Amino acid sequence: MIETDILIIGAGPTGLFAVFEAGLLKLKCHIIDALPQPGGQLAELYPKKPIYDIPGYPEVLAGDLVNNLMEQIKQFQPGFTLAETAETIDKLEDGTFIVTTNKGTKHHAKAIAIAGGLGTFEPRKPEIENISCYEEKGVEYFVKDPELFRNKKIVIAGGGDSALDWSIFLADVASEVTLIHRRNEFRGALDSVEKLQEYKKLGLVNLVTPAEVVRLHGDDHLTAITINSDGQEQTIETDYFIPLFGLTPKLGAIANWGLEIEKNAIKVNNALDYQTNIDGIYAIGDVNIYPGKLKLILCGFHEATLMCQSVYNRLNPGKRYVLKYTTVSGVDGFDGTRKEAEKAVVKSID
Amino acid sequence: MIETDILIIGAGPTGLFAVFEAGLLKLKCHIIDALPQPGGQLAELYPKKPIYDIPGYPEVLAGDLVNNLMEQIKQFQPGFTLAETAETIDKLEDGTFIVTTNKGTKHHAKAIAIAGGLGTFEPRKPEIENISCYEEKGVEYFVKDPELFRNKKIVIAGGGDSALDWSIFLADVASEVTLIHRRNEFRGALDSVEKLQEYKKLGLVNLVTPAEVVRLHGDDHLTAITINSDGQEQTIETDYFIPLFGLTPKLGAIANWGLEIEKNAIKVNNALDYQTNIDGIYAIGDVNIYPGKLKLILCGFHEATLMCQSVYNRLNPGKRYVLKYTTVSGVDGFDGTRKEAEKAVVKSID
Ligand SMILES: Cc1cc2nc3c(=O)[nH]c(=O)nc-3n(C[C@H](O)[C@H](O)[C@H](O)COP(=O)(O)OP(=O)(O)OC[C@H]3O[C@@H](n4cnc5c(N)ncnc54)[C@H](O)[C@@H]3O)c2cc1C
Ligand SMILES: Cc1cc2nc3c(=O)[nH]c(=O)nc-3n(C[C@H](O)[C@H](O)[C@H](O)COP(=O)(O)OP(=O)(O)OC[C@H]3O[C@@H](n4cnc5c(N)ncnc54)[C@H](O)[C@@H]3O)c2cc1C
Repeated sequence: MIETDILIIGAGPTGLFAVFEAGLLKLKCHIIDALPQPGGQLAELYPKKPIYDIPGYPEVLAGDLVNNLMEQIKQFQPGFTLAETAETIDKLEDGTFIVTTNKGTKHHAKAIAIAGGLGTFEPRKPEIENISCYEEKGVEYFVKDPELFRNKKIVIAGGGDSALDWSIFLADVASEVTLIHRRNEFRGALDSVEKLQEYKKLGLVNLVTPAEVVRLHGDDHLTAITINSDGQEQTIETDYFIPLFGLTPKLGAIANWGLEIEKNAIKVNNALDYQTNIDGIYAIGDVNIYPGKLKLILCGFHEATLMCQSVYNRLNPGKRYVLKYTTVSGVDGFDGTRKEAEKAVVKSID
Repeated sequence: MIETDILIIGAGPTGLFAVFEAGLLKLKCHIIDALPQPGGQLAELYPKKPIYDIPGYPEVLAGDLVNNLMEQIKQFQPGFTLAETAETIDKLEDGTFIVTTNKGTKHHAKAIAIAGGLGTFEPRKPEIENISCYEEKGVEYFVKDPELFRNKKIVIAGGGDSALDWSIFLADVASEVTLIHRRNEFRGALDSVEKLQEYKKLGLVNLVTPAEVVRLHGDDHLTAITINSDGQEQTIETDYFIPLFGLTPKLGAIANWGLEIEKNAIKVNNALDYQTNIDGIYAIGDVNIYPGKLKLILCGFHEATLMCQSVYNRLNPGKRYVLKYTTVSGVDGFDGTRKEAEKAVVKSID
């Protein structure tokens, strides 16, 4: 059982920054995320794109913002349960909670902060009969671990950045890479399109366009697929089929936790401290809704901060907290490190 | 008469960032500040100190944060009325406002955002009889324009960073600099104390400690001061006396604008959009109060953002605003410049 003060569900920018604010109040955090890496939408959907409305950053790449947040919270040593989905929650008699993931990992916490964004990212699946029978038996919707494909034959389908980038990356790993796309045109970064062009010429990637995968073959595991290209069918041998048709977020299991839901988001108490209808469960960032709500990164930062303050007051009833400025009081990490402004000297001059 | 959409009172981090969010919504801003430079507390009180709790910045100097904000809002060409204090407000029949400063400058705006922090900074004045008679006649509480002191004799009093730094700086400007302090010990950055030590040895600054100024002399203008050093009095000639004993913030004239005030701050509508009891007047950042309020820079950023959205809705009733991500839609400056993410190409591969 993992023990923590605040269990944060979602490692997007909101969940990450909450670790920092909690740390200032001496509260420990543990984060669960369904994705294999922290950063939420920024890391999964647009890591190489610039954001212009982070206060104090005229421009910052989404991936760099995530790295900076990870650096900022490092001192507070958050725990991570990655690539697992929070599925069930139980409130114990003492007011604490147990959250269990789809893989059975249990977390015990004094307060819960749901920072689940738009939800977990579910892959858009192509409409191929029986495709569900081949899931984890040759059909993969994410590239979690490239090593799975070492010296294997793979077929990737899709026409966007993920399809382009993984075809290029896996050309060095797999024994054979085929990329299939419904259209002749790919849509992605100029770099990637040009690199794929080169890889095709060098014979590192086979390209089949316009084409669609129409049937899957194999008994225990995928062995071949049939493609339809302009009415002509052709069956090719492959060990893996990786359709990369984008992701759609789903609120998922959290929707059944007894929380008030409105417009696919969790209602909170009118921006007071972002607590939900269940005492001790907070919702911060894109996942919550209240009058005036804006789904922006900078709003999640503020919400995370007020949430931590509220948890502190909950866990320390009656204790009056006096706000401390980091500039004045410094930051004491749980790892024993301290950051602080250079102290003024008191010195006589002779 | 200066015309603008949103008149912002206070050029601290909150007021500055409001210009950016307003700009995204095509609203123009003008800022009034009592100080001669933008940045609020950060620029006036701790420009060279690090802040650790700006989200995405493991560490940033307060002065650098101000510079970054100025760079971020540049595209939206805010107007500035600096070194003037907003004193009176009139609401016109059409719901717009006229704000007039202590120097008589008039500003006409569709909405008002008070981002006045803890108020205007008033100098702490030494208790010397008649000192008020010499104000602007040889007694200066701020160094607004160093040129005023070119080739003059000056006496500075104080033992902190301002007294140290201005003594050093003005040694190159004034014909004679005397620094007087009640104690023998100075309290400031190590650099500054060491530099003053050096300047004293080189005869660039006269140091008199422990000592206090007890009387001022002169008819139309200051000509001399009397100091008491360990019971011994001595009168020295000087053109200027600059007591630098720190600043205290005062809410000032704004307190009489008919706004609900609580704990020296302006009450807003429970974090909905930070509007005050007067329709069309908002209060954001350190200056406001609502349940759960935290006087932090990052909270001011969020409040500024929701305020702008509310002003937009006010000025465009019935028009449905759809939130646009800067990453996706780019940022169009009022100066004709555009920032945008590199566009994806749509390209066929042959
Ligand atoms: C293309 C694009 C451009 C954007 N540009 C901007 C911009 O310029 N400025 C701006 O402010 N915003 C922008 N946004 C929006 C911004 O990305 C979101 O506001 C931000 O990501 C919200 O952060 P968050 O931490 O609340 O949630 P998210 O970033 O969505 O993170 C939520 C995390 O929770 C996880 N999760 C959810 N449910 C569970 C569960 N049950 N178990 C385990 N994990 C779970 C998800 O896997 C995810 O990693 C943009 C979004 C997109 C898609
Ligand atoms: C030493 C110190 C360290 C700090 N450290 C941190 C930290 O680590 N993290 C953090 O988040 N916060 C910190 N703070 C607090 C932070 O500085 C404030 O939260 C922040 O400055 C508030 O910004 P603001 O824009 O709301 O107001 P301010 O920065 O106070 O700016 C308000 C401006 O309004 C002007 N003004 C007021 N009234 C009028 C008027 N009538 N007419 C014209 N102008 C007017 C003032 O001159 C001023 O420039 C610290 C503060 C201090 C003093």
